[in-house]
Amino acid sequence: MDGKEEIELAGTRDRIVDASAELFRRQGYTATGMKQIVTAAKAPFGSVYHFFPGGKEQLGAETIRRSGALYGQLVPAVFGPAPDVVTATREFFAAAAERLRATDYADACPIATVALEVSSTSEPLREACAEVFDGWIELASEQFVDAGIDAHAARELAIGLIAALEGAFVLSRALRSTQPLEIAGAITAHAVRAVLEA
Amino acid sequence: MDGKEEIELAGTRDRIVDASAELFRRQGYTATGMKQIVTAAKAPFGSVYHFFPGGKEQLGAETIRRSGALYGQLVPAVFGPAPDVVTATREFFAAAAERLRATDYADACPIATVALEVSSTSEPLREACAEVFDGWIELASEQFVDAGIDAHAARELAIGLIAALEGAFVLSRALRSTQPLEIAGAITAHAVRAVLEA
Repeated sequence: MDGKEEIELAGTRDRIVDASAELFRRQGYTATGMKQIVTAAKAPFGSVYHFFPGGKEQLGAETIRRSGALYGQLVPAVFGPAPDVVTATREFFAAAAERLRATDYADACPIATVALEVSSTSEPLREACAEVFDGWIELASEQFVDAGIDAHAARELAIGLIAALEGAFVLSRALRSTQPLEIAGAITAHAVRAVLEA
Repeated sequence: MDGKEEIELAGTRDRIVDASAELFRRQGYTATGMKQIVTAAKAPFGSVYHFFPGGKEQLGAETIRRSGALYGQLVPAVFGPAPDVVTATREFFAAAAERLRATDYADACPIATVALEVSSTSEPLREACAEVFDGWIELASEQFVDAGIDAHAARELAIGLIAALEGAFVLSRALRSTQPLEIAGAITAHAVRAVLEA
């Protein structure tokens, strides 16, 4: 295999995972077939089993982890430039609302649909989702610790933030309204302020 | 058709909807096949198309609405006997955590998985989910209004409560821990107290 072939193969593999991520986000894991994935990825059908000999579950777990890492970057990206963590918390929800409106209420959390589908049915996929949520909680905790909040309270606020965001996504997508995200953002920011002032 | 046959038919129809509700709650809409539903309902295969000529989407919409009405009763059941709405809010999340532990993290919200799966793919099913969420928001709003909170703030708290519960379910099921429910309950109760004291 020469260098060009290697790059092309890596490109095909990446396109398969990216296409899976997009489909999982919009319709979940079960509704997404391997055929739909290779079509969206413009990849030959056989290639998906070449790269993922463990089939859909292996591809699913890798997609969950890749999406998790990608979306995790949003935490420092929003909190870093914000003047304080209360403002950052509000902005985090506002950015999610903006993205939801811009995509006709389709692009919310990349893994929540899959998480609910698989939590009681596939242990490898549930574990991949749990790893991603733990990673996001850790990233948000760091932001609160950097703001002077002790580690225990920071972790609780981080869990509260991710939970509020996930639940607001469920309501906002079903109701086709960003109001749940705005309210969840206000309540979470209020909780952060209360801890800072305590 | 005599009276006994009518009762038996109604019984079969109910069993089909109940079986669908149980399966949707644990694995979602897409993963649930008509065959699995009739097997779980101990119903003849043809009966499902007799009762639901519109097929899986019609059965799905009715199941969502029935589950929504059933679970909606939990709002007055928990808030009614509680000494105040702050305590009731905490107890609502505590009861959800208890139920989740008792069912090995399977029984959380009856419609959230379906809501995420269908929000961008089936307008009739999305509308059924939206109706249920609106109904729950209304039921929770009434409790806050009865506690002397003005209608606008009551509605915002109700949306915050349902969103926090849904998101905590996502995390709790994936992480197999009730900690997200406990934290979300504390943050939501804190928000209710802040409005009462304002």
